[in-house]
Amino acid sequence: MQEDVIEKLIENFRSLPGVGYKTAQRYAFSIIEGDKERASRFAEAIKEAKEKIGFCQVCGNFTDQPICKICQTRDRKTVCVVKEPKDVIALEKIKTYNGVYHVLFGTISPLNHKGPDDIHIKELLTRIENDKVNEVIMATNPDVEGDATAMYIAKLLKPLGVKVTRIAQGISIGSDLEYADEYTLAKALESRRDMD
Amino acid sequence: MQEDVIEKLIENFRSLPGVGYKTAQRYAFSIIEGDKERASRFAEAIKEAKEKIGFCQVCGNFTDQPICKICQTRDRKTVCVVKEPKDVIALEKIKTYNGVYHVLFGTISPLNHKGPDDIHIKELLTRIENDKVNEVIMATNPDVEGDATAMYIAKLLKPLGVKVTRIAQGISIGSDLEYADEYTLAKALESRRDMD
Repeated sequence: MQEDVIEKLIENFRSLPGVGYKTAQRYAFSIIEGDKERASRFAEAIKEAKEKIGFCQVCGNFTDQPICKICQTRDRKTVCVVKEPKDVIALEKIKTYNGVYHVLFGTISPLNHKGPDDIHIKELLTRIENDKVNEVIMATNPDVEGDATAMYIAKLLKPLGVKVTRIAQGISIGSDLEYADEYTLAKALESRRDMD
Repeated sequence: MQEDVIEKLIENFRSLPGVGYKTAQRYAFSIIEGDKERASRFAEAIKEAKEKIGFCQVCGNFTDQPICKICQTRDRKTVCVVKEPKDVIALEKIKTYNGVYHVLFGTISPLNHKGPDDIHIKELLTRIENDKVNEVIMATNPDVEGDATAMYIAKLLKPLGVKVTRIAQGISIGSDLEYADEYTLAKALESRRDMD
């Protein structure tokens, strides 16, 4: 017996990832209880984002311009390959990386019927030639699919003579050996380095 | 180095209750990745809800009409008093209640500087006279503030000769005694009933 307008708003919030009915209801009520200006600002931001945001012609990341800010201003000879746009945001936080990115929009995943042609690998190959890339850093997640995708791309790039590296896997900084899982520990041991 | 339009959308999602940066980002990306029609439907629903939804003149609940559907169609002689609109939704699920509601929009809470005048008690008194209410069911939450508010209103209504009841407190149906807290158990014991 809920009013249809409220129900419609709740349904829209439910369409967001991981949002159930109760959470959607809470969001909807917060809009209704909030002031009018906030609601119209919110609605405008949704429309504007969808209208203005497209994909960068170079790296494939989200952008409101033909070529994103990062690709416009950074050294394009070093390319860091990631799975998703949010990985770019994570890596940008370290602030010391001055290269560019390449967003695959997924990883190779036979279980989910995703092959090499379903992610942006071809675009990467084109870039490597066009921009005369020196190094490709594989920064896909350190899980089965991320590793497999990194391996696949590394093999593909070998004939092109470009240097391919993989981000290091090991114990997190500040963490405790006691709580690390055995796979991480094994990897950390295997990838041990000389101390100078 | 994130595009401003995306950042703006993330900030808007962050204004929702309990949403942090990562969640807001996830929501924003789901909008950007989704199709255009969904985004405009979403934006429209937010605007429409804020524009059309007001308060029911009788019970105070959210509605898109001057008087809400429940108050329009139900027996107004029984009034169930609740703290918030979402409590109405919870109670409506039982489907057997044929009375109306009264939404207080809060409870008396000295710690949060909320006195009896800050919630919709006056409106309840007016209704009781106008609609010749027979019974007022206090359905505020069974916590300190909900109980205090129920007591306060019950005292206030006593001189008016209206029957005031409180929803039963006890062990949840289908739950296990072992896991019930001691306050609930004490209440369940205290409120024991004859078995016929």
